[in-house]
Amino acid sequence: MKIYDFEELPNPARVRIALAEKGVTDQIQFVKVNVPEGEHRKPEFLSKNPSSAVPVLELDDGTCICECTAITEYIDHEFDGIRLTGQSPKERAVVHMMQRRAEQKLMDAVGTYFHHATPGLGAEIEGYQNAEWGEKEKENAVAGMQYFDSVLSDSEFVAGDNFSMADITVFAGLGFADFAKIEIPSEYHHLAAWRDRIAKRPSVSG
Amino acid sequence: MKIYDFEELPNPARVRIALAEKGVTDQIQFVKVNVPEGEHRKPEFLSKNPSSAVPVLELDDGTCICECTAITEYIDHEFDGIRLTGQSPKERAVVHMMQRRAEQKLMDAVGTYFHHATPGLGAEIEGYQNAEWGEKEKENAVAGMQYFDSVLSDSEFVAGDNFSMADITVFAGLGFADFAKIEIPSEYHHLAAWRDRIAKRPSVSG
Repeated sequence: MKIYDFEELPNPARVRIALAEKGVTDQIQFVKVNVPEGEHRKPEFLSKNPSSAVPVLELDDGTCICECTAITEYIDHEFDGIRLTGQSPKERAVVHMMQRRAEQKLMDAVGTYFHHATPGLGAEIEGYQNAEWGEKEKENAVAGMQYFDSVLSDSEFVAGDNFSMADITVFAGLGFADFAKIEIPSEYHHLAAWRDRIAKRPSVSG
Repeated sequence: MKIYDFEELPNPARVRIALAEKGVTDQIQFVKVNVPEGEHRKPEFLSKNPSSAVPVLELDDGTCICECTAITEYIDHEFDGIRLTGQSPKERAVVHMMQRRAEQKLMDAVGTYFHHATPGLGAEIEGYQNAEWGEKEKENAVAGMQYFDSVLSDSEFVAGDNFSMADITVFAGLGFADFAKIEIPSEYHHLAAWRDRIAKRPSVSG
């Protein structure tokens, strides 16, 4: 199977960490989509993902799976090893709840700030921008960091006692915040300590 | 177990349809949260969901599950019957991909239009509004309808051959569009025919 992505971007990073956690990175053929040059907006890529976003997982039968949560569901159920999406109904529910919060409160909020309140990927690729909305989402991203700091004050991982895809999403979201120059408030000690622990996992430190 | 919701709203409707599809509605105790009066913004409810949104599923051990996808994952894995989140790794991935698209391209787009470009639930509850962004999301919602019309031109359901939670989300999204007075273009025949079929399911028609 193939993954179409651009390694340096935050969503591709999420799927690459998931693959490394499962120990199956070498079973994937990676195909580079040159996002900074707008290749993700060209017809060939849009036929794989009409939402024009990387990464896309292409199965051997040609089915294209888009969206990180969906790709991680596939990887987690197709391969053995560590469980990234929860096991019991309750675990699955908590992981999906925290995954959605990690996307909404952090990853997507940072993305909206980056694409709307900064030059982002450049005027030609960005098109319509709404700077006021972008700045508001920056506030929401910082509120999201505060929320996850509070969650991690009495939990080892974002969705409870076990590492999950929600940890990957928060970790990638903080990396995206650094890139977009959103400062992570230094008083969020639990978040910082958790981030240090995650950064030491072989799937991340490589 | 309990569900805190306000029946008339689109996200509560999604979970109620999922419960009816599984045939377990009578196993749930529903607790009304008066959203039009702002009860979802009060401390008692925020302790259950800091994102101040209904519905919330409260398990017997006190765990609160928020976000429709997470609640549906719980319901689908806890109870027997029709499968709403897919079975094989590939089915699971396609359902989650289409669920995310149904939220992003339709449900959330309509929601942003309603809460930002119309009076929504009233000035006191809405707080910050960005009308220009809301209007842009209205355009995205109509583009989303066109996308799902195209998907349904050669597929019986939103995520392939089987009914799934993604159908529920698109169906509820169209209901929300009606409520928010976003016109569904009459040329989207496949979408209209699918909507008629879904409306006849006992889980929807009651």
